[in-house]
Amino acid sequence: MRINGREANERRSMKMTVDYNKYAEGSVYIEVGDTKVLCTATVEEKVPMFMKGQGKGWVTAEYAMLPRATHSRNQRESAKGKQSGRTMEIQRLIGRALRSVVDLSALGERSITVDCDVLQADGGTRTTSITGAFVALAIAVNKLAVKHSLPVFPITDFLAAVSVGVVADRQLLDLNYEEDSKAKVDMNVVMTGQGQFVELQGTGEERPFTRQELDGLLELAEQGIYEMIEQQREVLGPIALKITEGKAGANV
Amino acid sequence: MRINGREANERRSMKMTVDYNKYAEGSVYIEVGDTKVLCTATVEEKVPMFMKGQGKGWVTAEYAMLPRATHSRNQRESAKGKQSGRTMEIQRLIGRALRSVVDLSALGERSITVDCDVLQADGGTRTTSITGAFVALAIAVNKLAVKHSLPVFPITDFLAAVSVGVVADRQLLDLNYEEDSKAKVDMNVVMTGQGQFVELQGTGEERPFTRQELDGLLELAEQGIYEMIEQQREVLGPIALKITEGKAGANV
Amino acid sequence: MRINGREANERRSMKMTVDYNKYAEGSVYIEVGDTKVLCTATVEEKVPMFMKGQGKGWVTAEYAMLPRATHSRNQRESAKGKQSGRTMEIQRLIGRALRSVVDLSALGERSITVDCDVLQADGGTRTTSITGAFVALAIAVNKLAVKHSLPVFPITDFLAAVSVGVVADRQLLDLNYEEDSKAKVDMNVVMTGQGQFVELQGTGEERPFTRQELDGLLELAEQGIYEMIEQQREVLGPIALKITEGKAGANV
Amino acid sequence: MRINGREANERRSMKMTVDYNKYAEGSVYIEVGDTKVLCTATVEEKVPMFMKGQGKGWVTAEYAMLPRATHSRNQRESAKGKQSGRTMEIQRLIGRALRSVVDLSALGERSITVDCDVLQADGGTRTTSITGAFVALAIAVNKLAVKHSLPVFPITDFLAAVSVGVVADRQLLDLNYEEDSKAKVDMNVVMTGQGQFVELQGTGEERPFTRQELDGLLELAEQGIYEMIEQQREVLGPIALKITEGKAGANV
Amino acid sequence: MRINGREANERRSMKMTVDYNKYAEGSVYIEVGDTKVLCTATVEEKVPMFMKGQGKGWVTAEYAMLPRATHSRNQRESAKGKQSGRTMEIQRLIGRALRSVVDLSALGERSITVDCDVLQADGGTRTTSITGAFVALAIAVNKLAVKHSLPVFPITDFLAAVSVGVVADRQLLDLNYEEDSKAKVDMNVVMTGQGQFVELQGTGEERPFTRQELDGLLELAEQGIYEMIEQQREVLGPIALKITEGKAGANV
Amino acid sequence: MRINGREANERRSMKMTVDYNKYAEGSVYIEVGDTKVLCTATVEEKVPMFMKGQGKGWVTAEYAMLPRATHSRNQRESAKGKQSGRTMEIQRLIGRALRSVVDLSALGERSITVDCDVLQADGGTRTTSITGAFVALAIAVNKLAVKHSLPVFPITDFLAAVSVGVVADRQLLDLNYEEDSKAKVDMNVVMTGQGQFVELQGTGEERPFTRQELDGLLELAEQGIYEMIEQQREVLGPIALKITEGKAGANV
Repeated sequence: MRINGREANERRSMKMTVDYNKYAEGSVYIEVGDTKVLCTATVEEKVPMFMKGQGKGWVTAEYAMLPRATHSRNQRESAKGKQSGRTMEIQRLIGRALRSVVDLSALGERSITVDCDVLQADGGTRTTSITGAFVALAIAVNKLAVKHSLPVFPITDFLAAVSVGVVADRQLLDLNYEEDSKAKVDMNVVMTGQGQFVELQGTGEERPFTRQELDGLLELAEQGIYEMIEQQREVLGPIALKITEGKAGANV
Repeated sequence: MRINGREANERRSMKMTVDYNKYAEGSVYIEVGDTKVLCTATVEEKVPMFMKGQGKGWVTAEYAMLPRATHSRNQRESAKGKQSGRTMEIQRLIGRALRSVVDLSALGERSITVDCDVLQADGGTRTTSITGAFVALAIAVNKLAVKHSLPVFPITDFLAAVSVGVVADRQLLDLNYEEDSKAKVDMNVVMTGQGQFVELQGTGEERPFTRQELDGLLELAEQGIYEMIEQQREVLGPIALKITEGKAGANV
Repeated sequence: MRINGREANERRSMKMTVDYNKYAEGSVYIEVGDTKVLCTATVEEKVPMFMKGQGKGWVTAEYAMLPRATHSRNQRESAKGKQSGRTMEIQRLIGRALRSVVDLSALGERSITVDCDVLQADGGTRTTSITGAFVALAIAVNKLAVKHSLPVFPITDFLAAVSVGVVADRQLLDLNYEEDSKAKVDMNVVMTGQGQFVELQGTGEERPFTRQELDGLLELAEQGIYEMIEQQREVLGPIALKITEGKAGANV
Repeated sequence: MRINGREANERRSMKMTVDYNKYAEGSVYIEVGDTKVLCTATVEEKVPMFMKGQGKGWVTAEYAMLPRATHSRNQRESAKGKQSGRTMEIQRLIGRALRSVVDLSALGERSITVDCDVLQADGGTRTTSITGAFVALAIAVNKLAVKHSLPVFPITDFLAAVSVGVVADRQLLDLNYEEDSKAKVDMNVVMTGQGQFVELQGTGEERPFTRQELDGLLELAEQGIYEMIEQQREVLGPIALKITEGKAGANV
Repeated sequence: MRINGREANERRSMKMTVDYNKYAEGSVYIEVGDTKVLCTATVEEKVPMFMKGQGKGWVTAEYAMLPRATHSRNQRESAKGKQSGRTMEIQRLIGRALRSVVDLSALGERSITVDCDVLQADGGTRTTSITGAFVALAIAVNKLAVKHSLPVFPITDFLAAVSVGVVADRQLLDLNYEEDSKAKVDMNVVMTGQGQFVELQGTGEERPFTRQELDGLLELAEQGIYEMIEQQREVLGPIALKITEGKAGANV
Repeated sequence: MRINGREANERRSMKMTVDYNKYAEGSVYIEVGDTKVLCTATVEEKVPMFMKGQGKGWVTAEYAMLPRATHSRNQRESAKGKQSGRTMEIQRLIGRALRSVVDLSALGERSITVDCDVLQADGGTRTTSITGAFVALAIAVNKLAVKHSLPVFPITDFLAAVSVGVVADRQLLDLNYEEDSKAKVDMNVVMTGQGQFVELQGTGEERPFTRQELDGLLELAEQGIYEMIEQQREVLGPIALKITEGKAGANV
């Protein structure tokens, strides 16, 4: 039996509160079990230097944990004067994943930054950030599409992520911190609404893993992500339709 | 008439949710109007280098704003590689204010760090941080006092803070962002439960101010802080009694 | 009796040597007791990014201590790779105070940076910096006003600062280092030639302070600053007249 | 037909020159096509703080590119004052992969740092670094094992890595820079001599990828890595036997 | 007898492999004894800010050592977040020396950066860098001269450098690391093909040195540099003629 | 005729005010023409990590310029977050030069840091810093020698420095800023009281220089330094005798 009595293929409960922040163009406060992340999407009418003059937009992400998001306090990265390798790796992953479902040409020369700030961490902060960031992004993009009557809706598919892993030789879906710290194999999977892979990052933390284990873990992840995307559809309501139909601007 | 229909001497509504974070020894999520700050207090069984061997404890604070806590997005200080002068000034103020109501000897060789992270900013983030930080600190200190059966309760008085200012020649209590940005004179006042000053920071932003104005502003602040401390008493419950009576350890 | 035999309301001797530096547009070497600060004002024909295109100027300040300005040597901030919170707080204060007596529109799109470098510190370095910085600024502004025949003299009033505090329950004017380190209450006051407040920063270092104490300290400060401004008038000579009369450019 | 006339499942030629550096305990200069990496392993008789007192060793890696390793010059990271997110991500990956085939207990309280410096980059620098780093590590560990007569050989299996990807809808093994920049799907695979996975990082750069594509890419990678490990066996000679047999110390 | 059986006035063997890097406009891998440096010259069609609009070019250099270039491993400067004083001093020296034999006007508004990365250090890394950097520079400048049909060849003379020193009271040419670490006097000399001085840096490491010693050391250096420039002529072939004749562009 | 009517072999007037700073163990305010440097020597009862346990002391130096020491204002290095290459090069030179005349064993396990802060720069700041730093050092060492009754006086000889150069084909002693900026050849020479070289740094800024020019410049420098050391003897008084006689501790 898993901690909290979950089945091997059972996710933690997930709750998304949209428009949590009154200034951001899109925002969601996402809770997956005891992991809590505030995602805010900011639209700016400019693109980074390397994208200038291409008539295309840009989407990027930043990730951070509050000092006491974890069991013991971590020193603030601003006080240390630099971001850790872990932080950089995670925010690069989130940005890359988001861009895979955005039609940058349809966005116009605008950039969207999604900030994922972890208020409390109990495992799966990077996958929870991706799942929440997608919703914040969709809300912000929708405002943009309506305001500028964009002819095509710039988001091309849904996007969610989950972790899977091997703990004590059992393959488990959606690890919490305690399970994660005991996992011999750990995998983060990001998928689209069409059930295709966007990112796959598997690590044999304590031992390598076999092809068979990989297959089992991917099956678990696929099911979990399918359920998460169902919840995204619900909270996004009419915006979800636009994503499916690829039509933008007009009538919400 | 003020924005939101408030009287000149009327505070914004204030709400404190204690134990918001499951890991921190003390925590409170404080909302003053649309200003929202998460305060967490972390206890560590060590003191900074400069306090070693004195048999005394230390209390310090850190302050930060999430990138989209404000109307437009601010670059993350960890990405810039350093904390701004404003951030440093504010966290020094919070730490100094907290220490003024702590008996560092009664604490033993322990340190408490209070993190104040602003999720949404609508004026008064530094005063709201102080008011919330005091509550988080009190909860953490109480746990410590019970656990180690401290003979004296290390917190000696209540502590709260409010901003006052002169806007269009009217003296106003508890400015929100819009009022603050128009204020000609701006003052932050930190006081104890005994009605004495801990910090007083007045600035003539656009013009100097007279002694008479100072007197008027201090009166407004005093009243506001008195009310805030009443609310602190309520949320702290039995811990409030310990602060008043200076007795620790035993029975909550 | 105070250290050095001063009365409670007696300032240390103050000496200002103008044009100490042969390159700066304005400079003064100011000595208040054993505290020695070199203030240089630099005029540049450009404004910071955030002021561009407004037809207004900018005034800012920087503050630093030489490594051996104090009893024991401090590590150089350039070697540490960052300025301390204390440094940032002080230079923000100096810049804000100076701007309160400058008509930025009358300055035109120019910026003036006043550097305050402490050669020797014996208490009151921030207030001494403000008092000296004002004189360096006035000399630089005068050169500018003459050179460009400015129609209005951009400095609107005098500006000086002093510290006051409570030491062993006595209220004292102009604390030196030894007094400052024993002070229970410490206050820095910045005032104009009209006797109004520009900045007021009071801190209960070891205990909170009462309204009565505040009143007493402000009275001491007011008297001290009045005397300092008299000395500024003397060293500034004909420039002092321009400040009083608000007329610029023509004939010195 | 691929660039350079390679088949889809054909690797670039790989050459390893061992003991390239006269100071390092282990070193190899590895060339895979035009990608050239110098790997040096340094043994130190200490472990990082977080590993102290556990009787176990540590293995870590650092990665960097010379400024002109690429088509156009990149600014030196030491001049920028920080390592990029890409650099951090890669060196974390290399270190994690190496640790997966090291018995840290058998190592004793020692640490090995493997530096991977890219002299010329033509695609696959991170996988080439892993393949070369393993050889440098094995040589260094062998010296250690002989010198200290370690009872167990601390390296438990071989380790190599290769990139695979989808270019113009063809699945290709071992992409060079030109192919990599056109790849729609890109995957780095790290495997052991037993044919199990240590790391799997797949990214849909321009479009998501299907389960079928994943299967095809993994097959290509598996074959490529098998061949690379054969080459590692050859250059390692008698050390290769120790890895297979897990016996250390005695007779080379 | 010296280490390795060299005479007092005998250089170590020197080998230069040109075009070592396939991307750089000019490159050479230079080996002087066991000291190995990779020098790459990068041409960019822009000049630094302070050179803009003067119709002249710029030449600069950067220097670094790989972490395990030395007996024990040095921390990577990018990880420390800053370049050491030694690194800065050396790269300033290399750049200054190179500029002394370049006609910046003849170069046009272009800049050339020569990177000198030390793969293995056994004494004399700064002088070896200068000698190699000159060759990489000459190759890059020649490509530029041909491509743009420059009327004048922008390199005006040859340039090489060597170290000399006093070890156990003997004056020696071209010290290796072991000799250098015992040297009481240490001097780096940079000269042109005309036998004139470009840089002279002598240091009495353990004791001051006399005028007579200076004269002896300069004689040794002069002879060594003469030989090195002969080798540069050989590897540069037809480019060497252009340097001698000062004619550019046309026919190589 | 030179600027200010000096002869080619004529130094600028030099003035040294000792004990300028009331806290430092040794200090001197040195003026050479319009170049003004404050040198303070700080004694600490500890040595850097790399010197521990050898029973020897350490001497080091730091150098900085105030922002407006020069014609136009330079950004503060603490604000930029790092020291420039020029600063590092100069402070390494000063420290190395000072150590050449200190018997580190006689010092005991103590370190002396000499800070050279340039208040006004008109050429020759590094040589002026060395000449002043020596005096500050000697005063601090003397206090140490007396206090601890050191059997041997730890300073073994005098030390001073001067710049020489070729301007419009004339060889000149002690260049000021205007001359220095026109110099084709520039040389800094550091010598002892015995007339031997400690450091020699010659640079052909605009053209290489001949052996004959070198000889002429060294002669000029030798004469200038001889005169400077005479002045050092005067201001040091009885301490000068101790340097000459190498006897310490007892009677001043």
